[in-house]
Amino acid sequence: MAVITAVDTFDVRFPTSTTLDGSDAMNPDPDYSAAYVVLRTSVPGLTGHGFTFTIGRGNEIQCAAIGSLAAALPGRDLDSVLGALGAVSRELVHDSQFRWLGPEKGIIHMAAGAIINALWDLRARREGQPLWLLLATLDPAELVDLVDFRHLSDALQPADALAILRDMEPGRDERIDRALADGYPAYATSPGWLGYSDDKLERLARAAVDDGFTMIKIKVGADADDDVRRARIARAAIGPDVRLAVDANQAWDVDEAIGWIQRLAEFDLAWVEEPTSPDDVLGHARIRREVAPVPIASGEHAHNRIMFKQFLQAAALDVVQLDAARVGGVNENLAIILLAAAFDTPVCPHAGGVGLCELVQHLAMFDFVAVSGTLDRRCIEYVDHLHEHFVDPVVVVDGRYRAPRAPGMSAELLPAAIATHTFPDGPVWSAAATE
Amino acid sequence: MAVITAVDTFDVRFPTSTTLDGSDAMNPDPDYSAAYVVLRTSVPGLTGHGFTFTIGRGNEIQCAAIGSLAAALPGRDLDSVLGALGAVSRELVHDSQFRWLGPEKGIIHMAAGAIINALWDLRARREGQPLWLLLATLDPAELVDLVDFRHLSDALQPADALAILRDMEPGRDERIDRALADGYPAYATSPGWLGYSDDKLERLARAAVDDGFTMIKIKVGADADDDVRRARIARAAIGPDVRLAVDANQAWDVDEAIGWIQRLAEFDLAWVEEPTSPDDVLGHARIRREVAPVPIASGEHAHNRIMFKQFLQAAALDVVQLDAARVGGVNENLAIILLAAAFDTPVCPHAGGVGLCELVQHLAMFDFVAVSGTLDRRCIEYVDHLHEHFVDPVVVVDGRYRAPRAPGMSAELLPAAIATHTFPDGPVWSAAATE
Repeated sequence: MAVITAVDTFDVRFPTSTTLDGSDAMNPDPDYSAAYVVLRTSVPGLTGHGFTFTIGRGNEIQCAAIGSLAAALPGRDLDSVLGALGAVSRELVHDSQFRWLGPEKGIIHMAAGAIINALWDLRARREGQPLWLLLATLDPAELVDLVDFRHLSDALQPADALAILRDMEPGRDERIDRALADGYPAYATSPGWLGYSDDKLERLARAAVDDGFTMIKIKVGADADDDVRRARIARAAIGPDVRLAVDANQAWDVDEAIGWIQRLAEFDLAWVEEPTSPDDVLGHARIRREVAPVPIASGEHAHNRIMFKQFLQAAALDVVQLDAARVGGVNENLAIILLAAAFDTPVCPHAGGVGLCELVQHLAMFDFVAVSGTLDRRCIEYVDHLHEHFVDPVVVVDGRYRAPRAPGMSAELLPAAIATHTFPDGPVWSAAATE
Repeated sequence: MAVITAVDTFDVRFPTSTTLDGSDAMNPDPDYSAAYVVLRTSVPGLTGHGFTFTIGRGNEIQCAAIGSLAAALPGRDLDSVLGALGAVSRELVHDSQFRWLGPEKGIIHMAAGAIINALWDLRARREGQPLWLLLATLDPAELVDLVDFRHLSDALQPADALAILRDMEPGRDERIDRALADGYPAYATSPGWLGYSDDKLERLARAAVDDGFTMIKIKVGADADDDVRRARIARAAIGPDVRLAVDANQAWDVDEAIGWIQRLAEFDLAWVEEPTSPDDVLGHARIRREVAPVPIASGEHAHNRIMFKQFLQAAALDVVQLDAARVGGVNENLAIILLAAAFDTPVCPHAGGVGLCELVQHLAMFDFVAVSGTLDRRCIEYVDHLHEHFVDPVVVVDGRYRAPRAPGMSAELLPAAIATHTFPDGPVWSAAATE
């Protein structure tokens, strides 16, 4: 019998605050980090990898949460676990004592997400397929069984989800071929970090267009005059035909958002992202009404399917920005993708950080093949940082993600990257401490 | 100079699952627990106490979070910290790296709440006053400065809050005397845990009325026929003049809630509590509309002021059930109390667990004296468990909380209670492990 033998966690941190990569209105000095988990098995060479992305302090708490919640896995039979990832994900999310610490939000829920993603990585490796292709070729009935419809049924029921998936069965093979040949559109966030100078913004914006991107995004929200100036620089650099999005990272109150967005509207925005608190469904809905037709996007901090349900019910979003590692893993993201389809709202995943591009490309490609059936209005965020630390890094060419082909969810960090960046004792941090 | 010298955390757990005390539709076997924190100072005998209430597994993660977040306090000057609890609470809640782990929700936010409550306990002890009286005698301008209005200003601005408090200044002294003389109404949850037999429910319901309670609450949500039978037993036991509330603890989906509540409406319910996911503002609003005039209550799992704002904006609640230890401590509860006043919605705090009655009585009495000015439609939950472990336990007589008179927030556990119940090495747990 093949079993899960152990769960190991690693506190891995990259000192990104030294260069202001990743700086925005709410996060001036992030150290991009991963609370990283490896599921070990009795099968030689077979492991599963997952992580929660954090921005530094507290990554040790996230590791502790993953370790506590995953303690139920060692000794479990691999076939039973991987053959029932719907039930296992519900077991992890709904353990009543752990659930109290959320419920279904924050550290404990992200821990469940990291473990569930690691289980999917394990299953996909075992089946020798990249995760997106594994998901895209599952029978619709099995996909529906993977989804937790609890507290969703006023908006989406299993029969609705099944109908969405069945409708998209014709053409699935053709879309798989298309994904393999053409990949998935990306947009570039790297040019627009708030800590970058105007010159660097302009230079990187031009470079993004030269690299084939048809959309870029810049950070806003610290100072309105600065934002108008930076949006003008960006728009001039990319020209009228490349799309320009802005991201406020929750910086504004509702009325402030409305006024600020009105000042930026002249730059023909693809969307305004996270204009206010990620909890504020009603606030997003009001902002969207009052700044129409400027599109509103959010989701990277929406903590579970029940929040996405409400954002969609309230007509608060034009773009669903799911995150691969904020919610309860692949299973909850299936629910979110199906909700978005039911409300005819495009999914443009959040990425960046450490490894979020690697994970989320699988969800977007699954969405294209099996749920939405289209690339229209769709793109995945792309940030050109830290990919070199992954065993199977994303490949973005001519502004498009290439479809991953290696088995798994592309979540595995290189052993050397872990060793070098382990906090606080890895050489990157112990050297910093003695400077 | 007096300083904070150390922060100690304790993983304290009570084996309540053995008796099914606290059992409900979502939490079948809680071990009521406290992630307990003690702030030590250089002043002999002066300490501050706070905690997060959990229900068992994961209490160790909560302790780790409190320890990590509070690491910034040792060495800080006591006067500067206690004289600026608005700024200090914002510093704890908005540390950008820790905030990513919420934001403002779950383990990291409850950790902030435990620390902020411990700082208030410390300040009240130092000033020789029970917390409610300290708060109730602060100048309204100081109270307003304590509140974080971020992401609230579309519903409540500092000037609104100041006007509410200024309006209630006349009569404050008289209401303090009234609180000291008559206390605050309580209602009894102890009769109605889901794991109790019908006989035990009936006996405890009668006993609650005999003890002077004018309202009791029972748990529902596992089986509709059982709930109808148990509500009938409870209503018969207490008679028509004692109020009867029911609590579903999030068990239902939205449509299910509507149907189930309609079956229970015949029992003249004081309110239906947590009918669905605590994140589901729109769901609560729809349930409330469709079961009117049955009142809807929620809040013990509403994770921050932005959720309460939306529940009130959406007319989703008749009763605001704030919790002393779920949100960001006293400061965020000030915001919630002021929001409730602005929307003319009564606050009836959640209590029970470990020490939640002890903490929340201070907030309710402050609300009465300085914000609402009335006891009409107000009551504090009361559960008769675990008070014996506190240095300054609540006193409930004739169905009313007596106003606490000892300095502080009544948060301190007896040293013996900590030693006995420390997990996993205290005698209660090490004995259980060897049984």
